[in-house]
Amino acid sequence: MQTAAASFDALIKETAALVEAALDGFLPRREGPLGRVVDAMRHGALDGGKRLRPFLLIAAADMFDAPRARSVRAACAVEMIHCYSLIHDDLPAMDDSDLRRGRPSVHKAFDEATAILAGDALLTQAFEILAEPETHPDAAVRCALALELARAAGKAGMVGGQMIDIYAEHKTFDLAGIEELQRLKTGALIRFSAIGGGIVGQAGADAIAALAAYAEDLGLAFQIVDDLLDAFGDAEALGKPVGQDADMDKATFVKLLGAEGARDKARALVESAKARLARFGARAEPLKGAADFVFRRKH
Amino acid sequence: MQTAAASFDALIKETAALVEAALDGFLPRREGPLGRVVDAMRHGALDGGKRLRPFLLIAAADMFDAPRARSVRAACAVEMIHCYSLIHDDLPAMDDSDLRRGRPSVHKAFDEATAILAGDALLTQAFEILAEPETHPDAAVRCALALELARAAGKAGMVGGQMIDIYAEHKTFDLAGIEELQRLKTGALIRFSAIGGGIVGQAGADAIAALAAYAEDLGLAFQIVDDLLDAFGDAEALGKPVGQDADMDKATFVKLLGAEGARDKARALVESAKARLARFGARAEPLKGAADFVFRRKH
Repeated sequence: MQTAAASFDALIKETAALVEAALDGFLPRREGPLGRVVDAMRHGALDGGKRLRPFLLIAAADMFDAPRARSVRAACAVEMIHCYSLIHDDLPAMDDSDLRRGRPSVHKAFDEATAILAGDALLTQAFEILAEPETHPDAAVRCALALELARAAGKAGMVGGQMIDIYAEHKTFDLAGIEELQRLKTGALIRFSAIGGGIVGQAGADAIAALAAYAEDLGLAFQIVDDLLDAFGDAEALGKPVGQDADMDKATFVKLLGAEGARDKARALVESAKARLARFGARAEPLKGAADFVFRRKH
Repeated sequence: MQTAAASFDALIKETAALVEAALDGFLPRREGPLGRVVDAMRHGALDGGKRLRPFLLIAAADMFDAPRARSVRAACAVEMIHCYSLIHDDLPAMDDSDLRRGRPSVHKAFDEATAILAGDALLTQAFEILAEPETHPDAAVRCALALELARAAGKAGMVGGQMIDIYAEHKTFDLAGIEELQRLKTGALIRFSAIGGGIVGQAGADAIAALAAYAEDLGLAFQIVDDLLDAFGDAEALGKPVGQDADMDKATFVKLLGAEGARDKARALVESAKARLARFGARAEPLKGAADFVFRRKH
């Protein structure tokens, strides 16, 4: 287990480095006011933690022997969407967070107008990257990626989830309500990451359905662990304050299930996620490793 | 001339009604917090004035006999991008405008968080619409639309222009600087509208180049008229305050060229725009009418 974890950690780091280099290439520095928005995009998108979503996309695509030159581009698109959402969520009118990954959030390092525009530009560039022929020679594949990403990110996905989160913060959600919120707010993009890899690799419908089922379990486990870390984690390791959910009397998995109940549920979901990948045999080891990683992560 | 203007006015109204109905269909109302973001999107996107960009797209596509079912969808995508940019530009951190088209702007009618999310959702849905098979049976056409729209809207297009506008407000721009700002901030999306119609209609490269040249002249004329209306227009007809550019000591075409100089330049650009369409003969009448319309508009 120790060895499996260590070898997964090396793998996700290696993949993150590929994504970092590609994102850097997509965001070349410029002079003047146009340079300012690019600098803010770089602040929000580079040096960015685990890169779990890009890892899922690339690892899923690897199972179908998709060239890395393609999967890394699609991975950059999903990471740009993730980073734009963090920039906008951190704004004073939204979650009002001054810190992100232990550094000033974009509106603190720059200003609010620049943060709004940098988020808009990252969101737009994600679709630009997917539409470019370099992402896949078959335009139908590129369109399928853009369509699934737009659905995961839009009003019936991530944006809708953020809207519910803002307007439900002080309400008491039951377990079904909180699972629905999670499915939209964080689950949709994690689901896209896994199926996006299948799409880049031109996997069949059955394989893509298996990836979707894996990612749905994984996304829910991810959110439960997030709630556990907010309740019991280490602020320094997390790079953000803890205890915020309880301070806001927010309904969370920890509040509804208790610490042990939440941990048990996350563990069961991780096992279920891995079982969804049985059909892929040994080729699924990296995705199975990601499921274990989500459970044991400390930040 | 009176008759040509009247018949154009009827044509643009008729096209706007098609776009309005299609946008309404893309934004079905919902209950609960998800319904709130849709309501804000509807506030920002429906009942929306002239619909010049959709008109350009549909009129250009008509020249190549593209089915309206396709061109209206692409027109909705460009209008969603236009409307998202207005919602975000109106935010307190940006232009801080309480009024838009004589009604409260989205952050006044709802709140800032909802306005940010509604803008994000419209931006995302524009790409969702373009990627859907209903927009064109050939995925290469859909990808070309998404790619051109992303380039027009992103950091080297509209967002970049807004960034320059914010950081250059109190600077003295020369004519070249102001033309570059306009080319990015408003020109890129107008240019997309015209070439987008050509792409939907699978026009050849020469025809698309002619549409681009037309739209570049038209976009510049549009901005010069905007400056003239801000300096000399009627606040009630415009649905927004006038004299703001002068109050902010902003460099404008009126400030740099004088009222007569600006009017002469706009007139010359409109004539040049129309001349770019010579190859299309009588089929280009609607687009030529749009150029005249831009010059004579009062709001």
